[in-house]
Amino acid sequence: MTDRRTFIKRTVMMAAAAAMAPSGILAGADSRSGQCGISSGRHCGPGACSRKMILEWEDFTARMKHTFSISGSSRDTTPIVLTRLHWNGVTGYGEASLPPYLPETQASVRSYLKKVSEEVLPRFDDPFRIEDILAEADALMPGNTAAKASLDIALHDLVGRLIGQPWWKIWGWDAAKTPYTCYTIGWDASDETVFEKTREASWSKILKVKLGRGDEQDRRMIRLIRSVNPETPMFVDANQGWKDKEYALDMTGWLKEQGVVMIEQPMDKYDIDAHAWLTERSPLPVIADEACQRLSDVRRLYGAYSGINIKLMKCTGMREAREMVSLARALGMKLMIGCMTETSVAISAAAQLSPAMEWADLDGNILIANDCFDGMKLDKGKIMLGDAPGIGVTELGMR
Amino acid sequence: MTDRRTFIKRTVMMAAAAAMAPSGILAGADSRSGQCGISSGRHCGPGACSRKMILEWEDFTARMKHTFSISGSSRDTTPIVLTRLHWNGVTGYGEASLPPYLPETQASVRSYLKKVSEEVLPRFDDPFRIEDILAEADALMPGNTAAKASLDIALHDLVGRLIGQPWWKIWGWDAAKTPYTCYTIGWDASDETVFEKTREASWSKILKVKLGRGDEQDRRMIRLIRSVNPETPMFVDANQGWKDKEYALDMTGWLKEQGVVMIEQPMDKYDIDAHAWLTERSPLPVIADEACQRLSDVRRLYGAYSGINIKLMKCTGMREAREMVSLARALGMKLMIGCMTETSVAISAAAQLSPAMEWADLDGNILIANDCFDGMKLDKGKIMLGDAPGIGVTELGMR
Repeated sequence: MTDRRTFIKRTVMMAAAAAMAPSGILAGADSRSGQCGISSGRHCGPGACSRKMILEWEDFTARMKHTFSISGSSRDTTPIVLTRLHWNGVTGYGEASLPPYLPETQASVRSYLKKVSEEVLPRFDDPFRIEDILAEADALMPGNTAAKASLDIALHDLVGRLIGQPWWKIWGWDAAKTPYTCYTIGWDASDETVFEKTREASWSKILKVKLGRGDEQDRRMIRLIRSVNPETPMFVDANQGWKDKEYALDMTGWLKEQGVVMIEQPMDKYDIDAHAWLTERSPLPVIADEACQRLSDVRRLYGAYSGINIKLMKCTGMREAREMVSLARALGMKLMIGCMTETSVAISAAAQLSPAMEWADLDGNILIANDCFDGMKLDKGKIMLGDAPGIGVTELGMR
Repeated sequence: MTDRRTFIKRTVMMAAAAAMAPSGILAGADSRSGQCGISSGRHCGPGACSRKMILEWEDFTARMKHTFSISGSSRDTTPIVLTRLHWNGVTGYGEASLPPYLPETQASVRSYLKKVSEEVLPRFDDPFRIEDILAEADALMPGNTAAKASLDIALHDLVGRLIGQPWWKIWGWDAAKTPYTCYTIGWDASDETVFEKTREASWSKILKVKLGRGDEQDRRMIRLIRSVNPETPMFVDANQGWKDKEYALDMTGWLKEQGVVMIEQPMDKYDIDAHAWLTERSPLPVIADEACQRLSDVRRLYGAYSGINIKLMKCTGMREAREMVSLARALGMKLMIGCMTETSVAISAAAQLSPAMEWADLDGNILIANDCFDGMKLDKGKIMLGDAPGIGVTELGMR
C-alpha cells in the first residue's frame, strides 16, 4: 500500500522523469568521434529519481585494431549503438553491434529503441518484470535482434545492480568453470601476415580459423598456422562456405588430424539434412552458427548439429540465451558462446553465460582499439568473472 | 586474496562450526508432538558465523484436517522432514514430504542429509554455487528426490535471503500472473460427505476430483459435485486408474461436458503409446503426473502428453523445476505445479514457480492442521506472492 505522502512524491518524480526524456531523443554523442559520449543531465541524480525506466541510446563506431576479413567482406570499423537504462538512480548498460553483413543499422536500432521507449517502458514501473518487458519489446517488430539485445543487456545490468550480484552468481554457476576464449586468425593473402598473426596469438589456448574460401585456401591457412604453431587446438568456422556434404566429411577428417577440435557452420544454414548427415559421420562436433539464431531454432536443429553457438546479437540477449542454455542442455547439445565485434558491454554480458559453455569465442572487445568500457578480463585467454554486479562493467568515459 | 588476520578469523570460525554440527545429528525435536522444534544453539549467532554451510534437520508429523483418500489408500498424517541451512548468520528453510505410498521415509531422508552434510557441504564455502552443490548432492545416491528437494529448497531460501529478493522476482516473473490453486475433493462413500466437502470448497475457483475407482464411482463423484456446484471448472486426476485408451477417450468426452478442463495421468505411467493416442484425440489436455518425475522425463513425454505436472518432491526441487519450465515452454507443453501434503515451506517454494504455470494444485498446506510456518497466502484461491526474500516463509515456532 502507498501512503499519500509517498504517492505525491512519486507523482512529482514521474512528471519530472516525463519532462526529462519522454521522446527517447538521442543524447547527441558524435558517432564519428569513436569516443563514448556522456549523456549528462538526462537521468536523475540521487536526489530526484523516477520509478519509470528511462532509456537512452547513442551511436558509437568501434575501430578495429586490424582490418577484419571474413568470407566475402572486410572492414576497419563496426557500427554500434550503446544504451543506458535508468531507474531510481541506478543505470544499466547495453549494446547493439551492427556488422554490415547483417540487416540492422544504427538507424534501425534507434527507431526500434524509440518505439520501446514510447510504447513499452511507460507500461512498467519495475525493472524486475524482465520477462514481460522483453516479451512486449520482442513483439513490437520482428527481427531487430541486436536492438532487442541492447535493451535486454541494459535491463539485466540494471537488475543485477539492484540485486547487487553478477548474473553468473544469480544463475548459480561457478566462475572457475569459464572456458578459454578462442582467438581468431582471419584469412590473409600474405603468408607473412598469417605467420605474424599466429605468433601474436601465442598467448591463446585455442585458435579459431575462418575457412570457406575454397579447398586450396582453406588448407593453405591451416598449414601456415600449423607451421608456426603445431599444437594449439583450433576451431574452424566455415561460415557456410563448403558446398557439399561429402567434401565437408573429408575436410573434417583432415582437420581432425591437424588438431582441429570443432567445426562451425560448414554448409548452407538452410540445409538441415546435409548437416544431419555430416553430424552423424563427422569425427568433429558440428556446431550451428548462422543456422541458430533464437530459442525456437534449437529444437529444429536437434539431431542435425552437435551443438549451437549462442550470440546475444542474434538471440535478443541474455534472457533468451539463458533459456537456450536450458534447452540445449536438456537435449544433450553442446554449447558455445560467440560474439560480434563488440565493446566490453556486450562481451561482459556474454561472459556472464560462459560458465555454462563448453567453448567461447569472446574476443570481440580485444579486437577493437577504442573500447570505452572496462569489463570482462582474460587471463591468458581464460574468461575471468568478478563480483561486480549486473554484467560487471564500468564506463571509462565517466572516470 | 585473504590477509592473514582474515585467514585466522576464518580458521577459528570453521573449527567452531565443525564443533557445532559436524555429524548432522538430529536436533532432537519430538517427531510425535506434531510441533516445530526450535534447534537453538546449533547455528551461529550474529557474532560468530561460519563460512561453511551447516545443515540441520528434524522429523515433523503433519496432521491432516480431514482423512485423505486417494485410489488405494487413506491416512490422517504425513511424515515430513524439515531442514535448516545456516551460512554466515542467515538461515534458509527446506522440507521433504513423505507420503506413505512413495519409497522415501524420514529415516531415508535423515540418512541422505547426513551424507550431504559430511560429503558435499564441506567442499563449498559459498551457497551461491547452487548448480554444483545440487549436482554433487544429486550424484550421491539415486532416487531420494524428496530428500534432495529439502536441501534444494533450503539452499534457494538461503540464497534468496542473501540476495534480498524472492525467487519469482529473481526469475523475472510477474506476481500478478499466478494461477488460482485448485482444491481437491477426495472420494467418499457417503454422498452427504461429498456434498459437504463440495459446499466447503465454494471459495475455490477450480475444483480437483480424484477418479480412477471404476466407471460407476467416477461418474457418481462428478454427478454429486455437479449437483451442488454446477459451474466451477474442474481438474480430474485419475492417478493411472483408467485401464484402456478407448475408455479414457469416452470419459474425457463426457467429462468435458461436465465442465472438466484438464485430466491428469489417466492411465499407467509406463504406457506412453496409449497416452499419445489419447492426447491426439482427447478434447481435454492430458497432463503427465506420475509419468513425469524429473527433467529427463520431459523430453521423453513430449508428444505423448499435452503437458506436465511439476512437483518439487518428485523433481528434486526448485532448480530442476525451473529447468523443466524452460524445457516445457520451449517444447510447447503446458505447465502445472503440484504438491504433496506439505507445510508452508515446500508450498511457498513451489509458489515461487507459479507465475510460469497455467494451473496449480498448491493446497497442501491448507489441508494440514499444524502448519508451523507462515508463507504463501491464497486470496479466494489465487496464489499471492509477496516481496519477502527467498521462498518467503517465517518459522512460527520462533515467534
